[in-house]
Amino acid sequence: MSDIWTWHGGALDAAKRHFGTGVEPWIDLSTGINPHPWPVPDDLAIDWQRLPEPELLQQLEAAASVYFGVAAEHVCAVPGTEIGLRLAGRLIGGSAHHVAPSYRTHGEMIAGSTATEWDGDAQSGQTLILANPNNPDGRLLKPEQLSELLRTRADGQWLLLDEAFADSDPAISMTPMVSETELLLIFRSFGKFFGLAGVRLGFVLGPPSILAALRAQLGAWPLSTAAIAIGTAAYRDRDWIAATRRRLHDDAARLDLMLERSGYRPIGHCPLFRLIETEEAQSLFDRLTRASILTRPFADQPHWLRFGLPPDQAAQARLERALGHG
Amino acid sequence: MSDIWTWHGGALDAAKRHFGTGVEPWIDLSTGINPHPWPVPDDLAIDWQRLPEPELLQQLEAAASVYFGVAAEHVCAVPGTEIGLRLAGRLIGGSAHHVAPSYRTHGEMIAGSTATEWDGDAQSGQTLILANPNNPDGRLLKPEQLSELLRTRADGQWLLLDEAFADSDPAISMTPMVSETELLLIFRSFGKFFGLAGVRLGFVLGPPSILAALRAQLGAWPLSTAAIAIGTAAYRDRDWIAATRRRLHDDAARLDLMLERSGYRPIGHCPLFRLIETEEAQSLFDRLTRASILTRPFADQPHWLRFGLPPDQAAQARLERALGHG
Repeated sequence: MSDIWTWHGGALDAAKRHFGTGVEPWIDLSTGINPHPWPVPDDLAIDWQRLPEPELLQQLEAAASVYFGVAAEHVCAVPGTEIGLRLAGRLIGGSAHHVAPSYRTHGEMIAGSTATEWDGDAQSGQTLILANPNNPDGRLLKPEQLSELLRTRADGQWLLLDEAFADSDPAISMTPMVSETELLLIFRSFGKFFGLAGVRLGFVLGPPSILAALRAQLGAWPLSTAAIAIGTAAYRDRDWIAATRRRLHDDAARLDLMLERSGYRPIGHCPLFRLIETEEAQSLFDRLTRASILTRPFADQPHWLRFGLPPDQAAQARLERALGHG
Repeated sequence: MSDIWTWHGGALDAAKRHFGTGVEPWIDLSTGINPHPWPVPDDLAIDWQRLPEPELLQQLEAAASVYFGVAAEHVCAVPGTEIGLRLAGRLIGGSAHHVAPSYRTHGEMIAGSTATEWDGDAQSGQTLILANPNNPDGRLLKPEQLSELLRTRADGQWLLLDEAFADSDPAISMTPMVSETELLLIFRSFGKFFGLAGVRLGFVLGPPSILAALRAQLGAWPLSTAAIAIGTAAYRDRDWIAATRRRLHDDAARLDLMLERSGYRPIGHCPLFRLIETEEAQSLFDRLTRASILTRPFADQPHWLRFGLPPDQAAQARLERALGHG
């Protein structure tokens, strides 16, 4: 399992080329992207011709800041969380740990960063990079744990917190702790919860001085007019957000039941994905590909397999059938 | 004239707020963006849901490389030339000159870079940042001059060449000089010639080793699915590209005639804009705003005024009337 689908999710075309197109259409469960995206209105005004005016970017950051629960001065929009992690990591620099296993990019944010297992300890003395909820195992730390972690950091050591999967429950987010003086950066992602990963939109939350340095690297027009228009409207859509939080919870509970009926123990607390740990992960991955279902194996953790949410009842039924035919 | 429209073009909303909405619709001549954009097809497939697969990005870079006339291994797509200039500048580092006046960001690419006037000399000994054609004066250096400049660089000193406005004539581009060993980076912009600045798409051309370092800063998904889909289709549209080159040439000649009839001497060789130099630049800018026409003044060059191409005959007529009413 050293192919691209063990490297990151969503490589559906590569999987089709490798495993064949199959009879039924492929179901992509290899990502943690909400399969029921925020519905981009057909008449949403996207002006491709003009450079986005600064006020439009400010409106997006204002809408996002309301959603995140922080002041807008602590919010910097970036063209995808991926580039936000990389640019911010270089700005912070110094010596760092990154909790692993987690999102691969965490290990590339700060040169020389060393991987560390999460042991629940404060692990102070260096800047710490971790995700909450974690990906791919869905481990969820409580705000009290994270507050304690922040409180016990040594002087000058940052907590870089990836909340790319934190949208399903606002109570788990550390955004209320962001301030001018706290050595805390939080990374948020638009594409996962809102199901629109192709837009490339993310946010870095932190002290204004760091955000100013980040903006100096991004320049005047970091986002497309589409990202600004879609993001602003989506973050303002409270009804959709509330309904989606309920729906994701229900869909994840349904996936849990299905995995349990098939003899697996689903792990994790992020409703956008579930992990299972099994000796037969590789053969199960292969078996699912023969049913044209792509899940997410991991090169370094051969006993793991991650499942995104099936998009509909037909996909649920196909997954359950394929899981059962051992 | 210390307002935002002396800082960069395109700040139309700010101008409206300041000068009033006016009776007639505003004409924005404050940018060098083609007013006749590549027509984005209504049925162009833009998948906002999925992360763009790596092959799609490769297809875009391949299409662009054919258009630029270089091998695809020398092409790295970036989410806007602005961020490309800033990230690449930091990668190159060292000591640098930037030719001024030019695009403001050139002075922010490399920390400590000093402004230098263009005197036609090789100015070796440090990395040199310049634009060809230059903006805002449209100064055009011949390929022989640039080749000589490149040839006489000292060891380890780069030429960073901004060709954001070079699309109107492929013969002026230095892309054929890009190679594995040449210390040459070229920056290309999608939005200006193709008239779609809101897409945020640009390219850095250079040695693969530098592009690899740049890609490491950008991460896996630097571009939106829209930027990839629109860019790929537009760069492949040879008929539109050929017709647009002819049209821009004609439209610029028409603007030249109009400026000359009004007593000004248009400067420059980029058909997307013309500069005039006049003692009355500030009062002319103000007078044009009273006719709801936004041009581009410059905080540091109070005698300059830059004009983009009027989009149609009605705009041409309004501009000529406003120019004449001194």
